[in-house]
Amino acid sequence: MLFHVEMVVNLPHDMPANVADEIKARERQYAQDLQAQGKWRHLWRIAGSYANVSIFDVENNSELHELISRLPLFPYMDIMVRPLCRHPSSIRDDDR
Amino acid sequence: MLFHVEMVVNLPHDMPANVADEIKARERQYAQDLQAQGKWRHLWRIAGSYANVSIFDVENNSELHELISRLPLFPYMDIMVRPLCRHPSSIRDDDR
Amino acid sequence: MLFHVEMVVNLPHDMPANVADEIKARERQYAQDLQAQGKWRHLWRIAGSYANVSIFDVENNSELHELISRLPLFPYMDIMVRPLCRHPSSIRDDDR
Amino acid sequence: MLFHVEMVVNLPHDMPANVADEIKARERQYAQDLQAQGKWRHLWRIAGSYANVSIFDVENNSELHELISRLPLFPYMDIMVRPLCRHPSSIRDDDR
Amino acid sequence: MLFHVEMVVNLPHDMPANVADEIKARERQYAQDLQAQGKWRHLWRIAGSYANVSIFDVENNSELHELISRLPLFPYMDIMVRPLCRHPSSIRDDDR
Amino acid sequence: MLFHVEMVVNLPHDMPANVADEIKARERQYAQDLQAQGKWRHLWRIAGSYANVSIFDVENNSELHELISRLPLFPYMDIMVRPLCRHPSSIRDDDR
Amino acid sequence: MLFHVEMVVNLPHDMPANVADEIKARERQYAQDLQAQGKWRHLWRIAGSYANVSIFDVENNSELHELISRLPLFPYMDIMVRPLCRHPSSIRDDDR
Amino acid sequence: MLFHVEMVVNLPHDMPANVADEIKARERQYAQDLQAQGKWRHLWRIAGSYANVSIFDVENNSELHELISRLPLFPYMDIMVRPLCRHPSSIRDDDR
Amino acid sequence: MLFHVEMVVNLPHDMPANVADEIKARERQYAQDLQAQGKWRHLWRIAGSYANVSIFDVENNSELHELISRLPLFPYMDIMVRPLCRHPSSIRDDDR
Amino acid sequence: MLFHVEMVVNLPHDMPANVADEIKARERQYAQDLQAQGKWRHLWRIAGSYANVSIFDVENNSELHELISRLPLFPYMDIMVRPLCRHPSSIRDDDR
Repeated sequence: MLFHVEMVVNLPHDMPANVADEIKARERQYAQDLQAQGKWRHLWRIAGSYANVSIFDVENNSELHELISRLPLFPYMDIMVRPLCRHPSSIRDDDR
Repeated sequence: MLFHVEMVVNLPHDMPANVADEIKARERQYAQDLQAQGKWRHLWRIAGSYANVSIFDVENNSELHELISRLPLFPYMDIMVRPLCRHPSSIRDDDR
Repeated sequence: MLFHVEMVVNLPHDMPANVADEIKARERQYAQDLQAQGKWRHLWRIAGSYANVSIFDVENNSELHELISRLPLFPYMDIMVRPLCRHPSSIRDDDR
Repeated sequence: MLFHVEMVVNLPHDMPANVADEIKARERQYAQDLQAQGKWRHLWRIAGSYANVSIFDVENNSELHELISRLPLFPYMDIMVRPLCRHPSSIRDDDR
Repeated sequence: MLFHVEMVVNLPHDMPANVADEIKARERQYAQDLQAQGKWRHLWRIAGSYANVSIFDVENNSELHELISRLPLFPYMDIMVRPLCRHPSSIRDDDR
Repeated sequence: MLFHVEMVVNLPHDMPANVADEIKARERQYAQDLQAQGKWRHLWRIAGSYANVSIFDVENNSELHELISRLPLFPYMDIMVRPLCRHPSSIRDDDR
Repeated sequence: MLFHVEMVVNLPHDMPANVADEIKARERQYAQDLQAQGKWRHLWRIAGSYANVSIFDVENNSELHELISRLPLFPYMDIMVRPLCRHPSSIRDDDR
Repeated sequence: MLFHVEMVVNLPHDMPANVADEIKARERQYAQDLQAQGKWRHLWRIAGSYANVSIFDVENNSELHELISRLPLFPYMDIMVRPLCRHPSSIRDDDR
Repeated sequence: MLFHVEMVVNLPHDMPANVADEIKARERQYAQDLQAQGKWRHLWRIAGSYANVSIFDVENNSELHELISRLPLFPYMDIMVRPLCRHPSSIRDDDR
Repeated sequence: MLFHVEMVVNLPHDMPANVADEIKARERQYAQDLQAQGKWRHLWRIAGSYANVSIFDVENNSELHELISRLPLFPYMDIMVRPLCRHPSSIRDDDR
């Protein structure tokens, strides 16, 4: 089941660089693990901003929340979630 | 080159059903042609609304505008475009 | 799986009363059928407005879209969907 | 009498972890007490965000304010309240 | 129990003057009846706009909705409702 | 002359409790003095939020500004002012 | 007593030209009369839009509403009113 | 003197095609004349929408308004104007 | 050439009082100098808020920016600028 | 390929002046280098605000993001990007 997720990162300006770097490194590892598992299907940068558009592929709403709320950057992001489904004009039965 | 495109359809309530049906049929054919050509990479319905989220894969801004402005539903849609690029945490070199 | 759905009705002022009445009657029947099936778990009026807050209980995003898009009033409503899940402070395992 | 309440939590990033934990523990206890009393009828997490949608069942506006303003997280939340009433298409006389 | 109600009137420009006059006459009579009953405690014009701010005094949310939804201008108004209660700094126990 | 005033309080989270208490105590005294003088005609809490809706009764715009800008909480509030006048459907000549 | 008034004109596209011209001619006459009386102190066009910024000089809120609501274009305008008073850094005692 | 102007076109859906075509043809001619005169310095399409971003080079605010308000599409556009000036980091003294 | 300028002041709550007072004193002197020169034609307080509406009379956009960006409170204000010109219904040729 | 980029600068009020100056000096140098290379085609100040409107001329979305995200002020700016293309009424084939 697919969800469209937008994330905008707002790190506090007074966060020490080494703290920010450590959080970003964990975020990267976590994001790559979820991608490798097929849970985080797509991850794109929105050009010109510290933000991404993502497609998650999960069992249900609970798994979606669990995955997102464990993001190391979760406390520092504005996140918008929208449920997706197959579009009747899609040429694919299962577009992921 | 990828672009994130959201389209919200607002058909006038007084459009005759046969006119609307004819436009929708052309829209469907057009959308499927672009998908077959690989120009319209993903097309998802936003659950609960008459709207979609799409990923276009085009040569440049001009081609993007040309493809979108030829949509039969173009005069009846609110359309938002955002340029995408590779995310540094993506596990793919070319995530389409 | 629960979804929070808000619906605001905007009937065109020039819709003939008998047309509006017929659509509303079908909407009512449809809503009551879905409630009887347990798909439409809660349906509340927002006091002072022609709008409702609803809780849907569906298998997945696709079923949610299918149920909502078949609403007789669907072309005349602004609809906002948000996925819900269990709150960690809830005293119920399965609050529906 | 039912009210629809949305709460979005915005803890200051510089709040010490032990202070935050203590507030959250009190919040949890308070929320569970109100649920046990039937005052806080439903409590759902909005998937992907640090926010909830709740249904309160109170005697009047004053009791609603009293219950909400005593939330330990009250100073750190954006809260939106909307009064609910029975929907004419509900199949229940008293949907709580 | 008090509610703060704002109403903004948007009559369609193509409504015939005699139809508009008839609706406004009924609205006026209805508003004055509710004021006489004490249900519609205050009714003020917002200077410079076709809008009002009102204070309703009702038994509960249901009565509020019933009174508002029967307004002859109801289909032509944007209405915003907010529940009120006693302010701790008020010098009155029952400020109506 | 009546004005509709909404005030939303946003105290900084790092304000020491005793400083906040002192400001609130002065605010309360000031608000009660103005009410006793008849300048601050109504003061209601908006249920569920740290905000109020008020009706001021003043000689002119200057007096309104003078009264509001002297509020001890003035630097910490979002304030919206709207001028009121008699509504043609009011049953009172001088509804205060 | 001064008020800052912004007016944005939205004439319906299907209004016959002669009807629009007649309304505009009356609006112009009315605006010039009020300017000659000193009630409408300033009237500026916002460059690039069918809108104006105005300063009214009236006895009270009621007179302001009376003058504005009699504008021939009143049913076709979005109007925003804000009360003004002397600025403490003004070099004039009575800046009109 | 430069101004940044955004124009979004909203043609009524019920405008006959020949009327729309005639207005667009006049708009095109007018736009090209102003470009040839150097008054309309830049004219770009915003990809994916029926909108443009333009740079006008005029003597003053009055000329700007005169040029914009004579656009054949003026009654059908949302227009936003912002004054520009030299940026201190520009490498050009007169960037047009 | 006239510009309509709105300024909303947002001083940081942790700015020491003597620093704020010094900035405000310089702001006042600067504003009065510009008024004396005729550059800052009108300066009004918006009743009930720490904000002003102003009319500037300058040679061009560059002078406007220069005057505004030198305001001692510039870093602490939200500022909105709109170009003005003569309104065709004005009774004055040069309304300043 | 052209992009329209707006940048609004929000420096934290507690940033030491020498830190801010150093960042601004690097920003200026970087901006001038990109202009000299023809990547940053236009750079205008929006009169009255600490913001600019820019036109970038890049190979693709990735280059745009790379150039923008390396701006020394990037962490302190709100940035909005819109893709541009040739307008059909432009008199230039390649308006840069």
